[in-house]
Amino acid sequence: MTLTPDRLAPMANAIRALSMDAVQAANSGHPGMPMGMADVATVLFAKFLKFDPAAPKWPDRDRFVLSAGHGSMLIYSLLHLTGYASPSMEDIRNFRQMGSVCAGHPENFLIPGIECTTGPLGQGLAMAVGMAMAERHLNATFGDALVDHNTWVVAGDGCLMEGINHEAIGLAGTLGLGRLKVLWDDNRITIDGDTSLSTSEDIAARYRASGWDVFSCDGHDFADIERALGEAAASAKPSLVACRTVIGKGAPNKQGGHDVHGSPLGDAEIAAARGVLGWTAAPFEIPAEILADWRSLGARGQAAREAWEARKVADPQAGEFSRRMAGELPEGDEAAKAFAAWLEGDASVATRKASENALNVLAPLVPEMVGGSADLTGSNNTKAKCQAPFTPADYAGRYVYYGIREFGMAAAMNGMALHGGIIPYGGTFLIFSDYCRNAVRLSALQQVRAIYVFTHDSIGLGEDGPTHQPVEQVMSLRLIPNLNVYRPADLIETAECWNMALQTPDTPSVLALTRQNLPQLRTSGEMLSARGAYTLRRAKADRQVILIATGSEVEVACNVRDALEAQGIGADVVSMPCMELFHAQDSAYQHEVLPNDPSILRVSIEAGTTLGWERYTAVSRNGGLNIGLDRFGASAPAKQLFARFGFTAEAIVPRILEKLSI
Amino acid sequence: MTLTPDRLAPMANAIRALSMDAVQAANSGHPGMPMGMADVATVLFAKFLKFDPAAPKWPDRDRFVLSAGHGSMLIYSLLHLTGYASPSMEDIRNFRQMGSVCAGHPENFLIPGIECTTGPLGQGLAMAVGMAMAERHLNATFGDALVDHNTWVVAGDGCLMEGINHEAIGLAGTLGLGRLKVLWDDNRITIDGDTSLSTSEDIAARYRASGWDVFSCDGHDFADIERALGEAAASAKPSLVACRTVIGKGAPNKQGGHDVHGSPLGDAEIAAARGVLGWTAAPFEIPAEILADWRSLGARGQAAREAWEARKVADPQAGEFSRRMAGELPEGDEAAKAFAAWLEGDASVATRKASENALNVLAPLVPEMVGGSADLTGSNNTKAKCQAPFTPADYAGRYVYYGIREFGMAAAMNGMALHGGIIPYGGTFLIFSDYCRNAVRLSALQQVRAIYVFTHDSIGLGEDGPTHQPVEQVMSLRLIPNLNVYRPADLIETAECWNMALQTPDTPSVLALTRQNLPQLRTSGEMLSARGAYTLRRAKADRQVILIATGSEVEVACNVRDALEAQGIGADVVSMPCMELFHAQDSAYQHEVLPNDPSILRVSIEAGTTLGWERYTAVSRNGGLNIGLDRFGASAPAKQLFARFGFTAEAIVPRILEKLSI
Repeated sequence: MTLTPDRLAPMANAIRALSMDAVQAANSGHPGMPMGMADVATVLFAKFLKFDPAAPKWPDRDRFVLSAGHGSMLIYSLLHLTGYASPSMEDIRNFRQMGSVCAGHPENFLIPGIECTTGPLGQGLAMAVGMAMAERHLNATFGDALVDHNTWVVAGDGCLMEGINHEAIGLAGTLGLGRLKVLWDDNRITIDGDTSLSTSEDIAARYRASGWDVFSCDGHDFADIERALGEAAASAKPSLVACRTVIGKGAPNKQGGHDVHGSPLGDAEIAAARGVLGWTAAPFEIPAEILADWRSLGARGQAAREAWEARKVADPQAGEFSRRMAGELPEGDEAAKAFAAWLEGDASVATRKASENALNVLAPLVPEMVGGSADLTGSNNTKAKCQAPFTPADYAGRYVYYGIREFGMAAAMNGMALHGGIIPYGGTFLIFSDYCRNAVRLSALQQVRAIYVFTHDSIGLGEDGPTHQPVEQVMSLRLIPNLNVYRPADLIETAECWNMALQTPDTPSVLALTRQNLPQLRTSGEMLSARGAYTLRRAKADRQVILIATGSEVEVACNVRDALEAQGIGADVVSMPCMELFHAQDSAYQHEVLPNDPSILRVSIEAGTTLGWERYTAVSRNGGLNIGLDRFGASAPAKQLFARFGFTAEAIVPRILEKLSI
Repeated sequence: MTLTPDRLAPMANAIRALSMDAVQAANSGHPGMPMGMADVATVLFAKFLKFDPAAPKWPDRDRFVLSAGHGSMLIYSLLHLTGYASPSMEDIRNFRQMGSVCAGHPENFLIPGIECTTGPLGQGLAMAVGMAMAERHLNATFGDALVDHNTWVVAGDGCLMEGINHEAIGLAGTLGLGRLKVLWDDNRITIDGDTSLSTSEDIAARYRASGWDVFSCDGHDFADIERALGEAAASAKPSLVACRTVIGKGAPNKQGGHDVHGSPLGDAEIAAARGVLGWTAAPFEIPAEILADWRSLGARGQAAREAWEARKVADPQAGEFSRRMAGELPEGDEAAKAFAAWLEGDASVATRKASENALNVLAPLVPEMVGGSADLTGSNNTKAKCQAPFTPADYAGRYVYYGIREFGMAAAMNGMALHGGIIPYGGTFLIFSDYCRNAVRLSALQQVRAIYVFTHDSIGLGEDGPTHQPVEQVMSLRLIPNLNVYRPADLIETAECWNMALQTPDTPSVLALTRQNLPQLRTSGEMLSARGAYTLRRAKADRQVILIATGSEVEVACNVRDALEAQGIGADVVSMPCMELFHAQDSAYQHEVLPNDPSILRVSIEAGTTLGWERYTAVSRNGGLNIGLDRFGASAPAKQLFARFGFTAEAIVPRILEKLSI
């Protein structure tokens, strides 16, 4: 069946009608983009996109990413019209209302057909880069029979203007991701007005400079759209298609202006638009013949899926492929054995080095782990020996040289995890978590297993000084919901934290690791870190103090304890590698570690901001004590800095004695 | 005096010798960049840069920004060799050691000749954009006689690869900042290895696509460098000079490789380099004739400064110019009067609207306020009526359409504040503080008066949903040292917070403002917000509860109080618009607001993460109570969300009664 322009036009108008009506009913939302891109999206779904509404999670589907997530009614319309089970028309009627899966911005965890959560501008396109990387990696690993699809993106001017766009397209160009196709809604309007208010860039030239092909079309001429998308589909390079559109197309008095961007059109304008579009159906009703044309589109993808299923049955790698796509770890206890062998050998190492050793155990056993670093490979210790570089010449490689692109890296990791079949991890200095913070947040919101290896985690990095010394970063990451922030104290805890990070498929992890060496504080055995915090040292004398510390400061706490015990003051040391996991324990365990006894002084020791530690200390004797750093650091060797800022037994013991004497 | 290449070469070698020796002595640092860019920097200082070592803060000096801040020995060498009072040779000997002003990365607050703190890659160049904006604005306001200078930048591959580079150069191109000249250290090496590992970009083409001129030179040919810098100096566009260099130039066995990037050369290689360079002086000694050539360079700038001083004496605007450059606010009580008149009129408004009203009072009275928004002008309410757009056609304009460039905006604000003569403020949604977080941190570290207007500050923004709803952002910003985070509860507090933000010249401010309307809770008068927190409502019945709230939740707290009082339970309401300022009060005031009485239950109410609030609640009855949101939000109208997540008197009162009953 060939859908000619005279049949495509009413199909596109169905998107326009739903978008106008849903935004009007919600009295909130963005009609301009869905109406402007309706024609392009219709051609994409009618002629190019490989999708099967009956199987939204089919591994070899094309990925469709609405990077301009504010235009969410575009994707809700497309999914409903093509016959996905979700969203229903009832959901669309309740766009942006409590309980509807049609949230303000598209959310992958509410609707199976939505590949990723978008809205924070630029990140959809950058996640699509990760999806295209995942596709090539799995293709190189499992072959064309199982993995052979494209990633299509709809992006707006905001997605192209954000800094992350530079990182994302540079990465895609360098990696030669020819399966990535970006449809740019070139409507020359942003919220503040005409794009000329704030940009004068030659976007096509910039994309070409980054190794992309650039095509263009009249975004309201179906034949021209089909030509341009066809050229992009055929290109071996990542491709940008500049779709010249009119924002709010179809709204006769408002189209082409910035008022149509993010506000309902109003009843009068909607009535006028219906006249222009020849749309006579009631709100939220789609004429049967138009809906039938939409529903016919899935047949192409259904056939492709059935052929794929047949190939899969015959494929010797199908089991392994399915395991990886399901996000299940390999079975067996090889990891435990290998860990045990390694942990017998090591002793005093930096936790970044312990992490490297853990990777050298895990990466050979968990082939879906794909690592990388934002140009700090030798500092983050992120490259396992078994990993070859991921390059255009070898997409089977499992190590990505991301370049100096922290935000682009983190978004690509999200895209790989969302694509499935890969457990991505990536490194940078902890301080530069600031550069990719919103992507870490999107890992958490999207419930993906992305693992961030953030090294150089305190003033302990030494001479690089305050620009590079995290002070507030560890606590600020703890504030992000559904994110586990690990700060291990030695090689044993580092191994345990890596273990746990792999075992939380719906929760991303941060590993905050030291540059400096740390002593081994305990032997392996029971995975104590799994409870978030545990008693590492028990008081010998009558217990008056509990010292709670993380990471490199656990060693300091042990020294403080020894000094207190020497004075006959009993003190526990509690290591708390993961505050979130401890917070999630039952109160019986929490009180076992931190007894509800106001005669005991609780002391937190962490080389970062103290705000937040009162959760565990303030209820104790005299309000507890917080040893931390509520100012920026300084440049000097690490040991001198620890002394200068009071992270030594000599400095801490007198403060404890003073508190005990009150 | 003309310095020919035969005299420039030993001058450049002095930089190389100091850089090698200082990094070696510190056993830490980056010799590669200073050695590679020594020739270019020597030509810049010898022939182009307008500077006077005797007057590092002279307002009309050229600004020199070392964006590749890890190469800090380059700027320390230059400042010392040209005769600035700081750093001394003793400081250089103690490079990266405790107490030396020669910190790991250049810090503006340690050495007067350093224009900005660099190291977090990409931000130096982006701050330079702000400096160039400030120069053009002040030039348009005060004329060529007082303001007529260039901004020169040395940037590395990292500065160009970071996403912020795209934002910064796009802004500079659009604004036509011809006084901005960037010298790119094109050495084709990053930490991980050859740049081809991670990038294939045609950088010149990209810069041209953004409206820049691009020149190039052999970075080790003095005549060629002088030609290229001369072309850049003459260009009316922002200019990039690609300086083809060899990293670590002069170290015969290590130059050109990535090992020389960030590690000491070692004694043997230093000895070999000395041989190659013909450098025979002892470490940290500069031969007299070479030093004399360096010291001669300041004469050109000294003459320029003296001529400038003479012009200034005759300039009728000199007083106003000096006031602005000194960062002193205008004298007089016009602001107070205008505020009083406005505050009598308003009542129930969103705090973003109250902020706009405050701006309409303040902006006409404080002409150095230059505002803007990252494409959310109508949502952030950042444009005062008196402000015209800042454009190439009108640099006197005081409102910047930054485009969708949050990070670039924040860095440009830092640059403007550091340049002096401007108090920058800029807006985006609070959630996108994540995108510019490290620039906010650099505002705090650099001690500048940048004011961030972050609106849509909670689930109260409603339908846009969890991607746009800040949950952890307010608390996470509170963790940054030397940053005041204001969350005003009504129009009165908003006015007070704006007032305070203007009055902290060494501390940046964040204003977290609502989208939704809030009732007026008190009348103006004493500036109660200045103490960070204060008792807004006093208990009538016997006081059993103190409710502590911020922003939109203060209204909720007042409703809770009324419900408790109706049951005979006395409750104070404490409004805490600025936790940092309250933390800085003396304990007498703190205990006046929050009495040290364990029989009273303290309850925090804030629509964000609770971690951190225990500082003020945990010491109270039964450990206190924290009403917050420790999960992501949802899409729905604001009032429904407040009900859904328990921010109503109906939901909170029972939780309080339960706590009181224990």
